[in-house]
Amino acid sequence: MAAYPNLPARMTVIAISQPGGPMVLKPERRDVPVPGEGEILIKVRAAGVNRPDVLQRKGAYPPPPGASDLPGLEVAGEVAATGPGVKRWRVGDQVCALAPGGGYAEYCKVHESNALPVPAGFTMTEAAALPETFFTVWHNVFERGALKPGETLLVHGGTSGIGTTAIQLAKAFGSTVITTAGSDEKCAACLKLGADRAINYRSEDFVAEVKHFTEGRGADVILDMVGGDYVNRNYSAAAIAGRIVQIAVQGGATAQADVSKLMVKRLVHTGSTLRPRTIEFKGAVAAALESQVWPLLEKRQVAPVLDTILPLKEAWRAHERMEEGAHIGKIVLDVA
Amino acid sequence: MAAYPNLPARMTVIAISQPGGPMVLKPERRDVPVPGEGEILIKVRAAGVNRPDVLQRKGAYPPPPGASDLPGLEVAGEVAATGPGVKRWRVGDQVCALAPGGGYAEYCKVHESNALPVPAGFTMTEAAALPETFFTVWHNVFERGALKPGETLLVHGGTSGIGTTAIQLAKAFGSTVITTAGSDEKCAACLKLGADRAINYRSEDFVAEVKHFTEGRGADVILDMVGGDYVNRNYSAAAIAGRIVQIAVQGGATAQADVSKLMVKRLVHTGSTLRPRTIEFKGAVAAALESQVWPLLEKRQVAPVLDTILPLKEAWRAHERMEEGAHIGKIVLDVA
Repeated sequence: MAAYPNLPARMTVIAISQPGGPMVLKPERRDVPVPGEGEILIKVRAAGVNRPDVLQRKGAYPPPPGASDLPGLEVAGEVAATGPGVKRWRVGDQVCALAPGGGYAEYCKVHESNALPVPAGFTMTEAAALPETFFTVWHNVFERGALKPGETLLVHGGTSGIGTTAIQLAKAFGSTVITTAGSDEKCAACLKLGADRAINYRSEDFVAEVKHFTEGRGADVILDMVGGDYVNRNYSAAAIAGRIVQIAVQGGATAQADVSKLMVKRLVHTGSTLRPRTIEFKGAVAAALESQVWPLLEKRQVAPVLDTILPLKEAWRAHERMEEGAHIGKIVLDVA
Repeated sequence: MAAYPNLPARMTVIAISQPGGPMVLKPERRDVPVPGEGEILIKVRAAGVNRPDVLQRKGAYPPPPGASDLPGLEVAGEVAATGPGVKRWRVGDQVCALAPGGGYAEYCKVHESNALPVPAGFTMTEAAALPETFFTVWHNVFERGALKPGETLLVHGGTSGIGTTAIQLAKAFGSTVITTAGSDEKCAACLKLGADRAINYRSEDFVAEVKHFTEGRGADVILDMVGGDYVNRNYSAAAIAGRIVQIAVQGGATAQADVSKLMVKRLVHTGSTLRPRTIEFKGAVAAALESQVWPLLEKRQVAPVLDTILPLKEAWRAHERMEEGAHIGKIVLDVA
């Protein structure tokens, strides 16, 4: 194992002291993880905050077997040590990575294939805001949803980390983008990011507006994190042969829907979650992102939208802000 | 136009005199259709009866624009005339074909690409039993559902025309087949056709039985014509990355389902209907069937299951039998 000189044995982390509200997030001292075969240890400079962290804090989303019990699914920092068999990275390299957990910490280990270089010109807080949403959007919109240039994407929750990423990537790859958001201010932010139409779901019916904007055709791909009564409305808003990709069910897992629309319109309703996928799967997505998307980031044609940066020890405030739902873009923890 | 000598100008058909029960099916005299560009006129010897014919008779499934108002989606017979530009068929050729409607008649016109040769050794009633179920099963199970050798297919309604075809084709292509049916007698018929397991849905819970039979894995592809409360149960019975293909909603179009399963299990729920598809799409399915499936028919490795053969003028009895639901396999009208 190659490592930093003077790599400490202990580190500060933010742990879930018990299931509950934001205040259960508390600093603890833990052993610095030891990278195994093919793994790198990252000296975390910044860690992204994601909705699954909130669910995990509440006790509703237990970490998969073998993963850290600490929250945190994405980090950016320097490689502090490399485990046996690591080929690509060397100590000191600047990387951002999808983590299986354990991101709210001074050190975090990940498989080397799940790390990407920090894009040229990016700050560590910007880089930490990339992995979760870029892996999620790339796989669900472009691979699973097979969005093609010239097609129309409807993305719900346009100002979320996922939403801001989906809007920019879909525009960069030549699609028309319609989005929904919960206020006129949020709609304005979506338009500024490149959305062709932003629907305020509190005052407008997104089914009617999508139909109107597409001259009756509907959306070719719908990225949905709401579920509940959106499911049937997505079936109505979809174009013939449309693909609806479910990545969360924040509005409820149970849906009442007219499945004859799936048949008559030849829709595909699918979905996925990222965390339980294999290292190999995530490595393949990382490789696709590096070749297709990283060049766009380095040209600043696409950039993460940062809402708030808070110090690691104030992770509870980051969760509070996410749960309030007023944020536009990503919430990131500074671990410097 | 090449044609039979003495091709008559008028013919007997069975028409839907008004929406209603089986007795609204009544003989009428109509003009013999004139084949247009690329079309052939078939002297119908036998016509298959399908559930959409029943829905159309009830007024619930209007024919698509341009199609005959007569029921009947599949026929077998001889080519009686060829329209301009027809390349493959000559007057006298024996064919079976998917029809856009108008099969309950002495003559029926179809596009030449939607016709296939009568398989060697097949009677006309057998050949008329092929198109609807073979086009439907091929597209939905093998193309849309992407069933692969070694995977497990769950097909509901195993003794229907669709079911008997799906069981045989999936077995012929190397899959494991589980089916559901409504009586022990029907289950026995499914096993005789090659199903590895037949579940009597009146006395057994298909979700538990599929899980048990697959040692907890679930079914890779589910072909469903029930909808309603089967939708959520299909999500439960499906394997990780399973595909559920909806081809009808006989149990109701409205489903209450837990869509988080789509996401967590990365399922694909899709579906299609055959009738409104383009001539070109149907022609592509016909070409796939001719190369992949027709050789199996000619070897009798796969064969249509015939339940009842009735004369054209007794089409009402055919509909009665279909609506009673006691049939095993296809109901065919003899038009000789």
